[in-house]
Formats: sequence, structure tokens, C-alpha cells
Amino acid sequence: MFSNTRTTRIEWGDCDPAGIIYYVRYFEIFDVSTTMLLERAMGMKKIQYLKAYNFLGHPVAETRAKFRRPTRFGDEVAIETQVVAVGRSSIKLEHRLTHNGALAVEGSETRVWAVRDPNDPARVRSEPIPAEIAERLRNAPVSAG
Amino acid sequence: MFSNTRTTRIEWGDCDPAGIIYYVRYFEIFDVSTTMLLERAMGMKKIQYLKAYNFLGHPVAETRAKFRRPTRFGDEVAIETQVVAVGRSSIKLEHRLTHNGALAVEGSETRVWAVRDPNDPARVRSEPIPAEIAERLRNAPVSAG
Amino acid sequence: MFSNTRTTRIEWGDCDPAGIIYYVRYFEIFDVSTTMLLERAMGMKKIQYLKAYNFLGHPVAETRAKFRRPTRFGDEVAIETQVVAVGRSSIKLEHRLTHNGALAVEGSETRVWAVRDPNDPARVRSEPIPAEIAERLRNAPVSAG
Amino acid sequence: MFSNTRTTRIEWGDCDPAGIIYYVRYFEIFDVSTTMLLERAMGMKKIQYLKAYNFLGHPVAETRAKFRRPTRFGDEVAIETQVVAVGRSSIKLEHRLTHNGALAVEGSETRVWAVRDPNDPARVRSEPIPAEIAERLRNAPVSAG
Repeated sequence: MFSNTRTTRIEWGDCDPAGIIYYVRYFEIFDVSTTMLLERAMGMKKIQYLKAYNFLGHPVAETRAKFRRPTRFGDEVAIETQVVAVGRSSIKLEHRLTHNGALAVEGSETRVWAVRDPNDPARVRSEPIPAEIAERLRNAPVSAG
Repeated sequence: MFSNTRTTRIEWGDCDPAGIIYYVRYFEIFDVSTTMLLERAMGMKKIQYLKAYNFLGHPVAETRAKFRRPTRFGDEVAIETQVVAVGRSSIKLEHRLTHNGALAVEGSETRVWAVRDPNDPARVRSEPIPAEIAERLRNAPVSAG
Repeated sequence: MFSNTRTTRIEWGDCDPAGIIYYVRYFEIFDVSTTMLLERAMGMKKIQYLKAYNFLGHPVAETRAKFRRPTRFGDEVAIETQVVAVGRSSIKLEHRLTHNGALAVEGSETRVWAVRDPNDPARVRSEPIPAEIAERLRNAPVSAG
Repeated sequence: MFSNTRTTRIEWGDCDPAGIIYYVRYFEIFDVSTTMLLERAMGMKKIQYLKAYNFLGHPVAETRAKFRRPTRFGDEVAIETQVVAVGRSSIKLEHRLTHNGALAVEGSETRVWAVRDPNDPARVRSEPIPAEIAERLRNAPVSAG
């Protein structure tokens, strides 16, 4: 299935008075990784694919994370994100965040393909993932090389 | 076991371009609720209990959340937090966030009682929760009335 | 002119490894105060007044802040917000954040009344503030007593 | 004087229900740029230079920003940061954030060299900037080429 790896840096403003990352920031890091993976799979930026497919976003239905080692400001970390299941209107992803090769955090999330309810624009509802998107998410990305 | 309920308001800056809360913000809301519960259980503010017990904090070892209905800026929400297990050096808590009585988010988290490693101040390690704290967390709070 | 005072609490997740508030959080605090003031002036929640007046928001054109004393997690702070000028399509506000009566931060901001450009929905432009809103912002709020 | 340029990307979680960046996020972006500039000037990561010089940080005494054009999620932006004054115990920096070459935000900030008050560890006070650091900040960085 589709996967993506990126690196980022833990910053001062991400850390708390214990001197380590405030754990909430990891979910922002994972959200960026998921966006990056989906942008690569769809071949468009998020701002473009929301328009192209007339959908509202891919809200998280459920997420969990295990924090195995703390990270600190200045740490360069790598985040590997992998699609692990593609359902009718949802996908499941897993994240592994490592620092110097050691696993620091494991995360997983289930996202739904969300559209505005045509009968009530204030409501959001799920819709089947378009077949060509589901197909691309089920396959490994084409190597850049 | 100990529990705490509080209310807060979802703000503009908590919401994303889909017009609903950016899900990451819920973890900040839950973290504040846990602090409030522990402050009530210990009878001190966090800044005081960290000093009184010479510990670094209560980092999250694992957390999960299910997002059932979105909330929007201006929504007044209630968060009920409940201790569900008190272990040797960890506690488990559950959160239920409701809007107008309807369940919007369920969260759970496991926290450890963390101290600085005396052999290596750059490391954090867990330690048994002091008996009187464990005792208070196992009992329902005394009613204010 | 219109003013508003509210209180809030500085939380663990707002603070940085120096143990004091990460200064960026003050701008979120000020933004919430401005929303609260405008909601009181308009007699509606923001989600309602955006719809009622068909505008996009009141983006900040310029802001500044002076940080006089640090605050720490657990500090209860008060924020006094005051409209100081009402222009054709902009307003200027000032904030004073105090802790135990001592001034911790002074902030000011200029906001514009922003609508979607009818010729290009991707663009935002300013528009005159409706006369009745400008009128209310120029006057002191009616006391709750 | 010393300067630094970096690029970053505006993310979904940085944007608000108007679909544009929530202005508060710019201050986080500027803070990261200042850290990067100081790390280059000192030749060490922040976590190392705080220890090497036994100081607490470089808190902001005053900051301001002018927001000229909004940015949106997916926008790649460049941030040019320049030291404009080096005082006895403070420095002033200016930031210019551009998108596709157009100026989006101008910011400035004054930072102080802060240490823990030896007479009262709960207090922070300023101290003269070490001469070699002041010297490096006053000079243009050595080109990588």
C-alpha cells in the first residue's frame, strides 16, 4: 500500500516545562504526514484535491498513539506513514516516528472521506472514496528513481 | 474513582478550513481536564505538586480518541473525566466530551508518574505513585456541597 | 468605547521549556478576547454574525505586544480589551493582561471587516463596517446590572 | 548583520474557517526562524547553547507584525530574518515572509538574553550578551559557498 516518509524538527515551542515535546504536537505532525501522503497519492495539493473532488476533508474518526521515548527541541525526527487499509469510505493509516533510528512514537488513525450533506450544509457526512483514489492508495507509490 | 467535569468553548482559532474543530485541539482540552482532576485530587496546583513531590510531570504513555460528531467555533462543550485505573506507577483516565448533551468525542489516556533519572538528568523514568495520591485517585471526590 | 474583561488560566501546554508561557499563546488569548467583545457588541455568537452580515471574518492587519512579566502554568490572568478607534472598515483594539493586578502584557491590534471579493472568491477584501455595528462599538457596553 | 532565510509550508491545521492562515501561527514561524538564525550564529543547537551559556532562553520583550496578504494551506513561503540591532542585553530582529515573491507578512521582535535570577530561581532577569556572540550577530554570516 501507499507509504510516505518525511523528516521534521522538534521546536522549542513544541516543548513543555518538562523540556520534552508536549505530546499533543505529535498529532499535528501526523496530520501533516497524512496530508503529504494523500497529496502524493492524488498528485495534487490538498487545496486542489478538495476542489477537484468537491469534498470537505478527511476528518479523523479515531486515532491512537503510543509514546515510547520523549523527544526534545532540536531533535530531527523521521515519520514513516503507511496506508494499512482502504475501505468503502474510510482509510486507515499508521505512523512511526523515530529519532536516531529509535522508535519514539507509534500512531494510527482512521479517516473518512467527508462531504457536505446536500440536504443540510451544516452537516458533514461520509461518501465512498472515488475508485481511482482507492486504487492508488492500495498500491505502493511509484519510486522517484 | 475520582472524576471531574468542566466546560469550555470551542474557539475560531481551534477550527480548520472545513469550519469544524481541528481534531488535535481535543487532546489539549483533555490534557487540561486531566490537570484539573489531578489538582483537585492532590489539593494543589500542578506547579505546586510538581515541586511538592519532586517529579517532572505525568507524561502520556498511550492515548486514543473517537470523534463521533464535529464541534464548531462558539460551541459550549462539557468534558467529564474519570480515573478508571490506578496502577503502581501509572493511571488510566477516560474523557467524554459532549455538546448539548450529545457525545462528540470519547478519549482515554494512560499517564505515568515521571521523575528525572538520578543517574542521568537528561532521562525521564517512572516511579511508584505515592500511596496517599493513589488512595485519593481511587476514591470519589468529596462533594463541594 | 466598548470594552470587555475576562479571565483565563495559563496551562501546562501553553508553557515552554523555560517554564513560562510561550509568548505566541498570548495572541490566541487576545484573539479570543476580541471575539468575545465583538459577540457582546453584536449580540450574537461569531458563527451567527458571520452569517448575518455575510462576511468572512475580521482578520488582523497589524498587531503588537509588549511582554512585561512572564506568566506560568496555573496562573489565573485577567484580560481587559478596549476598542480604541472605529474607522470606516477597520477597528483598533487594545488588550491589557494582568496577573495578581500586575501588568504582564500589553497588546494592540487593527482588524478589518473582510468579505469575499465578489469578482474573485479566492480573494478577501475589506468593506465598510455596517453603521449599526460601528455605532455600538463606539459606545460603552450597557452594564449587566 | 547576521541574516537567515528558510522556507516552510502553511498547513491545514494552521488555517482557520476563513480558509486562510490563523495569524497567530506566523509568530510560531518567526520564532523558529529566530532559533535557526541564533543556532547558526552560535554554531550550536539551542538545546546546546542554553547549556553552554547557562541561560534560560531569549524571551521576546516586544513584537509586532503587519499582515499584508493572506496565505493558505499548501502555500510554500520563504522567511528572511535579519538582525537589525545588537544591544547590551537585547537584540532586535526583522522577518519578511513572502509567497511567490510577494510580501505577505512583516514582523519585528526584540529579544533579551535571560538568565535565572541567582537570588530567586523563580524569577528571570536579563544579562549582557557574551561579547563573542554579540560580535557574531553584528557580522554577516560566512557564506556556505
